[in-house]
Amino acid sequence: MKTIPGGVTAPIGFRAAGVYSGIKKKKKQQLDLALVVSDHEGPVAGVFTTNQVVAAPVILDRLHLKQGIGRAFLVNSGNANACTGSEGMEAAQEMAQLAATTLNCAPHTIFVGSTGVIGQPLPIACIRKALPALAARVTRRGGAEAAAAIMTTDLKPKQVAVRAQLGGKLVTVGGMAKGSGMIHPNMATMLGYLTTDAAIGQRALQSALKQAVDQSFNCITVDGDTSTNDTVLCLANGMAGNRPITAGSADFTRFCAMLETVCRTLALKICWDGEGVTKVVRVEVTGAESPKAAKQVAQTVATSNLVKTALFGGDANWGRVMAALGRAGVPLDPSRISLQFGGVPMVRKGLGLGRAAERQLTKVFKTKEFTILIDLAQGKASAHMWTTDLSYEYVRINASYRS
Amino acid sequence: MKTIPGGVTAPIGFRAAGVYSGIKKKKKQQLDLALVVSDHEGPVAGVFTTNQVVAAPVILDRLHLKQGIGRAFLVNSGNANACTGSEGMEAAQEMAQLAATTLNCAPHTIFVGSTGVIGQPLPIACIRKALPALAARVTRRGGAEAAAAIMTTDLKPKQVAVRAQLGGKLVTVGGMAKGSGMIHPNMATMLGYLTTDAAIGQRALQSALKQAVDQSFNCITVDGDTSTNDTVLCLANGMAGNRPITAGSADFTRFCAMLETVCRTLALKICWDGEGVTKVVRVEVTGAESPKAAKQVAQTVATSNLVKTALFGGDANWGRVMAALGRAGVPLDPSRISLQFGGVPMVRKGLGLGRAAERQLTKVFKTKEFTILIDLAQGKASAHMWTTDLSYEYVRINASYRS
Repeated sequence: MKTIPGGVTAPIGFRAAGVYSGIKKKKKQQLDLALVVSDHEGPVAGVFTTNQVVAAPVILDRLHLKQGIGRAFLVNSGNANACTGSEGMEAAQEMAQLAATTLNCAPHTIFVGSTGVIGQPLPIACIRKALPALAARVTRRGGAEAAAAIMTTDLKPKQVAVRAQLGGKLVTVGGMAKGSGMIHPNMATMLGYLTTDAAIGQRALQSALKQAVDQSFNCITVDGDTSTNDTVLCLANGMAGNRPITAGSADFTRFCAMLETVCRTLALKICWDGEGVTKVVRVEVTGAESPKAAKQVAQTVATSNLVKTALFGGDANWGRVMAALGRAGVPLDPSRISLQFGGVPMVRKGLGLGRAAERQLTKVFKTKEFTILIDLAQGKASAHMWTTDLSYEYVRINASYRS
Repeated sequence: MKTIPGGVTAPIGFRAAGVYSGIKKKKKQQLDLALVVSDHEGPVAGVFTTNQVVAAPVILDRLHLKQGIGRAFLVNSGNANACTGSEGMEAAQEMAQLAATTLNCAPHTIFVGSTGVIGQPLPIACIRKALPALAARVTRRGGAEAAAAIMTTDLKPKQVAVRAQLGGKLVTVGGMAKGSGMIHPNMATMLGYLTTDAAIGQRALQSALKQAVDQSFNCITVDGDTSTNDTVLCLANGMAGNRPITAGSADFTRFCAMLETVCRTLALKICWDGEGVTKVVRVEVTGAESPKAAKQVAQTVATSNLVKTALFGGDANWGRVMAALGRAGVPLDPSRISLQFGGVPMVRKGLGLGRAAERQLTKVFKTKEFTILIDLAQGKASAHMWTTDLSYEYVRINASYRS
């Protein structure tokens, strides 16, 4: 498997574009409407937010996913179309209908997405007006433009593509995502759109996507909130001409690895582009009694504001990690716990290793990327999470998001 | 019941003082060691952190609480004596022993407390050296000095006292607390020391304190972390000479109200003095199916960083409240939910009430204190939490706490 340039239009048969439709307040050259189209329809897999307050596009996409066939993604930024009631549902349906008419396909093959402010009516007139030009604009090189058009407070568009020999052919998986605020598992907020020219059935695709998301988007946290709009979709058009991938086969395993690489790369790009982020840190928990316990400890440490501000300050305050794991709700024996930061042992059997270790630790905390290793010494299960620091910038961006 | 000046030395028979012992790095006139002594020993009640990583003084106090008799509180700031192993336990025991020798009482009647940095050895030599002068210094007017000596990043000492006619006599309850970072239920981090001259048995006192803490310290959150050191203790010396208060009596109910007032006043002072806090907001949940569900929703909203930064920014972003309650892990019907902010209806049956309501809301968000009312319209249970905004200052203070 190798990484290649591009994103959603890297696989055969995908075109994309982005335009400014008027949903965002105009500032400079910003885009707010993206279209990704496959030349042919194909199976679609999707995973969505577990938040119980869900946006209209999520409700609609879940409905469309029951048929499991897709042709295009139509996504706007600047408005989340969430908490907008039946009017919002109608707007989401109209988005799908408009794209279906323009592309001459069935509405249920259109998957729509929205991201931005919650609770304001989606200005569907903007989309109605912009769609013909957008549809005319899609090209094989339009992936980057589409990735730019789904951004909100993101600083950079996020896309990636990988390619590998699979079932006798070169198969490509591409993807784009938007993230920034509200990044937390279940699922990591954000919109993620994956495309592939692999030939694969819907159920195998769904299972592969679920696995990939669990190991990537569901392992990152920026601020512990989950959004009403979280969506990851993958459309497979089969145009690579490979032998169809079946669940459980060696090809399936390799395809899963490709999806996971794309998802993990996008997830880490989201972390790095998280609001005000200056550090991305992997929290790894080993020696837990169960995978669930391991995950719970990793999550509690990864979402602790006190840990996150210490990361920002470059402050080797390992005591905050101990305090955070102690409230994870998992039975622990503090006197067994060991901590390493970037490979430097700092706590052994619950005890700090003193000033010399701390001096080394201070150096680790000044780097931009390292691992916090927590060994509970109770069992054999492990889990990890990526987290980010909590900075002034996070507060600034989130205090004034709508203004 | 009326509020009177003073704190832990307001009840009859309590003396206190604070000194600088050398535990903190010296900056200006700061104090770091407090002693509160009762002329006579009496029943003690206590509640402690639910964190599984607990500091040595908490372990020791839990042990002493089994006897349930107290004479004095000895508390240092600048060092938490947590994650310090058997050496830390010895230091905590020595603190108690030193005070017991000085005051000529049994070590188990001394309750010790520590707050500050985790994982560094407690410089017990400082305490050993400072204690004689501290013990000589205690006076009936020393409550404020003791309250100042237990501060860490607190900006202001926190104390309060209330008095009421009870069982034929004037009974007084006083208290002091330190808080700031790591304020979260179970229990709200912090140290809280309550004194009273009421005559009351240990079991009744323990039950009253538990209730009071549940309705006060356990209803506040600053940053969602719980500390290794959280402790609230109450010592009752019986010197008011009232008829002994028995559980279930009318006097007991009135005494509970006094304790709760003291605890709630201290808890709100902690919120207001929270790191970088500019707003204190009450999150009230009604119409829940169970008290537990109500509490869970209140907590999830109260600890959401996105809600807290919106509060700081004065941004009427009610969508973040909807998004936060949707991930509380409680079954909800979004189409029944109503929201009011400071009495202004903003969401009715899951739908935003439009621009005019939002303009009013913007005014509410600019005030320093208001209530977010969440009506789930599912049942009859309710709960509340106080939360604070998340500001630049929070990040600044916590990024550099140890430096």
